[in-house]
Amino acid sequence: MLEHFKVPEDIAVKVPLDRLRATTSAVFQKCGVPEKEADLGTDVLMFADQHGIDTHGVSNMLRSYVNSYNSGAINPDPTISIVKETASTALVDGGGGLGLMTAPKAMEIAIQKARETGAGVVSIRNSAHLGAAGYHAMLAAEQDMIGWCMTAGGKSMIPTFGAEPQLGTNPIAFAAPSDKEPTFMFDAAMTSIAGNKIGLANRLGKPMGAGWVANEDGTPNMEGGAASAFAANSLRTQLPLGSTRELGSHKGYSLGVMVDILCGHLSFAPGFAELALRRRAHLVAAYSVDAFGDVAEFKSNMDSMLKGLRETKPMPGHDQVWYAGLPEHYEGIKRAEHGVPLHPEVVDWFRSICAEFEIPFDLA
Amino acid sequence: MLEHFKVPEDIAVKVPLDRLRATTSAVFQKCGVPEKEADLGTDVLMFADQHGIDTHGVSNMLRSYVNSYNSGAINPDPTISIVKETASTALVDGGGGLGLMTAPKAMEIAIQKARETGAGVVSIRNSAHLGAAGYHAMLAAEQDMIGWCMTAGGKSMIPTFGAEPQLGTNPIAFAAPSDKEPTFMFDAAMTSIAGNKIGLANRLGKPMGAGWVANEDGTPNMEGGAASAFAANSLRTQLPLGSTRELGSHKGYSLGVMVDILCGHLSFAPGFAELALRRRAHLVAAYSVDAFGDVAEFKSNMDSMLKGLRETKPMPGHDQVWYAGLPEHYEGIKRAEHGVPLHPEVVDWFRSICAEFEIPFDLA
Repeated sequence: MLEHFKVPEDIAVKVPLDRLRATTSAVFQKCGVPEKEADLGTDVLMFADQHGIDTHGVSNMLRSYVNSYNSGAINPDPTISIVKETASTALVDGGGGLGLMTAPKAMEIAIQKARETGAGVVSIRNSAHLGAAGYHAMLAAEQDMIGWCMTAGGKSMIPTFGAEPQLGTNPIAFAAPSDKEPTFMFDAAMTSIAGNKIGLANRLGKPMGAGWVANEDGTPNMEGGAASAFAANSLRTQLPLGSTRELGSHKGYSLGVMVDILCGHLSFAPGFAELALRRRAHLVAAYSVDAFGDVAEFKSNMDSMLKGLRETKPMPGHDQVWYAGLPEHYEGIKRAEHGVPLHPEVVDWFRSICAEFEIPFDLA
Repeated sequence: MLEHFKVPEDIAVKVPLDRLRATTSAVFQKCGVPEKEADLGTDVLMFADQHGIDTHGVSNMLRSYVNSYNSGAINPDPTISIVKETASTALVDGGGGLGLMTAPKAMEIAIQKARETGAGVVSIRNSAHLGAAGYHAMLAAEQDMIGWCMTAGGKSMIPTFGAEPQLGTNPIAFAAPSDKEPTFMFDAAMTSIAGNKIGLANRLGKPMGAGWVANEDGTPNMEGGAASAFAANSLRTQLPLGSTRELGSHKGYSLGVMVDILCGHLSFAPGFAELALRRRAHLVAAYSVDAFGDVAEFKSNMDSMLKGLRETKPMPGHDQVWYAGLPEHYEGIKRAEHGVPLHPEVVDWFRSICAEFEIPFDLA
């Protein structure tokens, strides 16, 4: 499903996960991140790199994190605090740290509250990039809970009928536990395509797809074509999921607003009232399956449904139907064995940053 | 935005809301529904009829409710019970009644739990059609809470790459309180278009839109055209929001699975493990804004964001940008004054059912 964005096989450098993990954690630590936090942030990146979520792995993200630590935009050693809490909710201030490390801690709070009351809902402000939202949702699923994670901010998505971007790509992640079937894990932007995928397409010289971005006057571009034909800021003029009003773009747009409300407004984060360019906030939530009924029965029911979905009769040209989390599961097995395929440019960046930080380089 | 589905102005019979309300409640009562419950179910229908959500008003739904009561498929006087509960969650059994009346009671439980713990999450099984999910979400918003409502079941949506339907249209509703701006209220199917809208288009002789339904082999039909050109069961071969994989249909599909999990699996409702045709369940949830911070500040921030969204520079051919709930707000004002425009066929149905039930008829 992700072929379009894969690093070409003939140039990919396959790096074993454990080496990539060690190097990435060392890079975080050289930025001033304490070891335990560095390992946690690395775990979020490795989750993406192992499971083929290349948009949120080291290739696309680590360089920008390093730049942000260097410029002082992110605090490498933040104090995370609870601003307000009730039995089932909390508002967490991330202390200006990276969301990769804030969100798992917030999810820990949500899981604990769900253990005690059945549900835990935690909004998060003052926290930078979240990484793959699916990672955080999975933390709950691993505890036999329903897990949610969302993140909002920035201006990439144009509202339906609009000529200027007002919302972020505002992804929603959701995971639920099963027994034998790979976990259902959904994680997707509420734009028709993730912003990082446009960046990745640009880097790989791939064309823009139809329905991804708007023309300069805001009208949906339904033809697509070479990235160069679009405004340089096409990252900032993304269409909502649905692309046009006729195909339901008001739904992607409204789901995006919903994410802004749950993340930004519920955490009283700066910039959300003003739809400011620089705004960012997250939400994590956990619902305990045990609070509703028997966990084993739930997981067995999930198995049965997921099997039913993947055994759906496929349409012509396809071998099978997938469900969210299934391709990532298979890719994870493959990459655990054969390594993570990195673009040579990414390996070069690692080589130079390791030299700069005086970290031993063993990725290639 | 809803022009496509409007009853033509020259044939519409405009019925005052209070008369439509009285007649509808009388019809429910003649089906054996106790007066208080009849009024509640009527309120859900009137919400849809007043606000232009014609797919979920009396025209499209009341006849089928009456048929279901008559056939014994719905229990007119159910016992609603709590199967299991914790401080923040409950599993409610609807006793085989209509979801119109079950969901507000379940939302009352969720709101009470949110008042006590910050969050309330209630799954509902053994409950028939829900009506407009937005109504139930709004109940929470009116109490200064975030409101969710979802409903799952049936087989209408084809999974991405599939050739047969496996999921319902599985709508998600979400509402959040504001101060002066009309409430943000989102309510939409996770198919590219609501199933009822296809039914309505059929009734009004309108064509199928591009990206609404699949061809017989499951491939997305992106041309649209006369309804007669599609299989008679086109209601049952709807495309997920996003329509094609390239435009993001895996997102609409996965959001549909998410709704199945939250409604059906979390309530342990029959048929969900098997993806059975006859399955139905709901979820309502409320998050108290007060648990996270100052309610007045939240509502003022919401006002500011909503104003920003509707003042977004529009694309050519449009006067303004909308947000979910805004068109419904304006339509509600109009219809409160001028009445609900009903198709003459619907008025005829009311005339005949009133005669049969010996209810005085005063709608036209």
